Amino acid sequence: MDILLRQDHDKIAHLTLNAPDRLNALSDAMLAALQDTLDQIAADRHISAVIIAGQGKAFCAGHDLREMQAGRQAADGGAAYFADLFGRCAAVMQRIQSLPQPVIAQVHGIATAAGCQLVATCDMAIAADDTRFGVNGVNIGLFCSTPMVALTRNIPRKAAFEMLTTGRFIHADEALQLGLINRAVPLATLADETSALARSIAAKLPVAVKIGKSAFYDQAQLPTAEAYAYTSAVMVENMMLRDTDEGISAFLEKRAPDWSSSE
Amino acid sequence: MDILLRQDHDKIAHLTLNAPDRLNALSDAMLAALQDTLDQIAADRHISAVIIAGQGKAFCAGHDLREMQAGRQAADGGAAYFADLFGRCAAVMQRIQSLPQPVIAQVHGIATAAGCQLVATCDMAIAADDTRFGVNGVNIGLFCSTPMVALTRNIPRKAAFEMLTTGRFIHADEALQLGLINRAVPLATLADETSALARSIAAKLPVAVKIGKSAFYDQAQLPTAEAYAYTSAVMVENMMLRDTDEGISAFLEKRAPDWSSSE
Amino acid sequence: MDILLRQDHDKIAHLTLNAPDRLNALSDAMLAALQDTLDQIAADRHISAVIIAGQGKAFCAGHDLREMQAGRQAADGGAAYFADLFGRCAAVMQRIQSLPQPVIAQVHGIATAAGCQLVATCDMAIAADDTRFGVNGVNIGLFCSTPMVALTRNIPRKAAFEMLTTGRFIHADEALQLGLINRAVPLATLADETSALARSIAAKLPVAVKIGKSAFYDQAQLPTAEAYAYTSAVMVENMMLRDTDEGISAFLEKRAPDWSSSE
Repeated sequence: MDILLRQDHDKIAHLTLNAPDRLNALSDAMLAALQDTLDQIAADRHISAVIIAGQGKAFCAGHDLREMQAGRQAADGGAAYFADLFGRCAAVMQRIQSLPQPVIAQVHGIATAAGCQLVATCDMAIAADDTRFGVNGVNIGLFCSTPMVALTRNIPRKAAFEMLTTGRFIHADEALQLGLINRAVPLATLADETSALARSIAAKLPVAVKIGKSAFYDQAQLPTAEAYAYTSAVMVENMMLRDTDEGISAFLEKRAPDWSSSE
Repeated sequence: MDILLRQDHDKIAHLTLNAPDRLNALSDAMLAALQDTLDQIAADRHISAVIIAGQGKAFCAGHDLREMQAGRQAADGGAAYFADLFGRCAAVMQRIQSLPQPVIAQVHGIATAAGCQLVATCDMAIAADDTRFGVNGVNIGLFCSTPMVALTRNIPRKAAFEMLTTGRFIHADEALQLGLINRAVPLATLADETSALARSIAAKLPVAVKIGKSAFYDQAQLPTAEAYAYTSAVMVENMMLRDTDEGISAFLEKRAPDWSSSE
Repeated sequence: MDILLRQDHDKIAHLTLNAPDRLNALSDAMLAALQDTLDQIAADRHISAVIIAGQGKAFCAGHDLREMQAGRQAADGGAAYFADLFGRCAAVMQRIQSLPQPVIAQVHGIATAAGCQLVATCDMAIAADDTRFGVNGVNIGLFCSTPMVALTRNIPRKAAFEMLTTGRFIHADEALQLGLINRAVPLATLADETSALARSIAAKLPVAVKIGKSAFYDQAQLPTAEAYAYTSAVMVENMMLRDTDEGISAFLEKRAPDWSSSE
């Protein structure tokens, strides 16, 4: 079995973490498969949105602890391996945000440690209403420092601090209230709800979504005045697209746009 | 009719976007009127707070699409006009935040695209409880990249991403929960509630509010240590004001302050 | 009576602001006692968590206004004293966040101005459900510019602006919803709830919590890519600890870790 499944329907790539016996841990193999598949999707003009789900009873339980402990056998006690591992994991996370297409996490069961980081990193997330989320590495002596980067950019400071230092799990309703997910739904409708969200994005002009997603993360790190200078240039670029001219004209003429040039 | 109405009551300037047949679009004329009026208010010592409302059935529906499309007739396809337009719009938004007086959006009907940006930009906002908010340019192929600057500095990341890429409208109760507005009230009491908020600010020492508003946006962009160094100096400046001396003394003596020197 | 009480139970330092007749104001003496005690705790390997509570009917009502007004008698009208005072207060606030151990505010009654800043500054906060919070200096002509630094890093922008410019108090339920506190509980159980939170942290590997808390505030001020580079190095450092090796091994072997080396 492949460790990462990909099925394309319409313009949506459905990725499934497929190591259920290891709770879909982000092992070396899983990270490599994610990086490779995301790189392929980045260059795939036929894909407008991506869904990441997990096979089995959990979405993702974080790093593969057995593999990490095995890494200690190296002459340096594992230091070089660990540095490489966290670098590869951070690269996958940043690849999700630099991808031209929006990425939606379809979450169920548990999302813990780097698995919670994956949820926080995806552009959007919908969770089954009995999902539990945690950054619980502190319980075994390994503070979730890299997951913290994504978590603290999604939820308020004091809630993040408590999750990180106590290892406390939160349920989907609290995750929703804090801003970690977009919606909590019954498990029975989870896949349908996530697909519906992906389809609503796939119906937009792809290049407009691509331009906007890229600007979303870039402008967030700029002072306001610089963010306006930058996004004003992005708006001009967007306005000069033939399909945007068509989209606005169609709206003013109360008809559907003909975006066939971008198909 | 003037495109922007101004009525001063007590120390409050009530501005009304007055192009109801165009849903108060931020046309070239509207942006110029806003910039001009805000510049006048900035220098007006008799004004302590500003309210921005909309005439007709909507607060503001964003840019004037017909005017923008007409701009494409230029030799460069409109590129220079669009760059100038987004620059002027960003200047108005930043003028609101650099204004010495707090600015409150009084929102009803719809606030979409740059109209939603205007709500996000104002220092505070009160909305009628059936108001709908959206950054829905993506629906016509024009991602709301400049509105995004204001939106993402007000609401959590995943909710902002969803609104921007799906064009989904949110109602006042969700806008309140996300932090986009301060209160949702019945339409019948909207003007009264907004005026009451403005009056509560107009009753403060104007120079203290001015000092504080300026520091509010500046310190938010600094690392914490620098923010403390900066605001500590602001506090000293504030303490050295004669009216602040009087305000603290009056409080300790359990009497009303005599701030007539600042009238 | 000492102005600041310290009692250690198990590995938790319980600090009590003890100037109830002045609503535990952050006077020169109180700030000095806090700085001195926190510096001692920073170097105390037997302390794993800190609780800050207030004696009497209030948690803390901010600066000592009588002392500040007395400072105006100096030749410079108090300018040098005020600059020094706000510098010392900011130093205490930053000492809380740079402390190796998590600090929990145990809040009741009122927390106003610099007292509200103290709540916002602590890593976590639990409040009695009838507590009121305010940054109400604007009411006496002194805008809460330094408290604003902490407040705006905890709660959404528009809510912070309203609190600062209107002086409006919020109750514990609103403080919870905004993210200013972690929990609101009945006053009768406040001390127990706070101690339970502190104990849950004291049960973790202290060095992991120390590493994580330090990284928490540092990474929050970095762009995402730099934050990942930084926290990846922190994770490697954490992984190389003997007790972390033991913690992960114990988890994989389904037994309790033997962290006696860090006692």
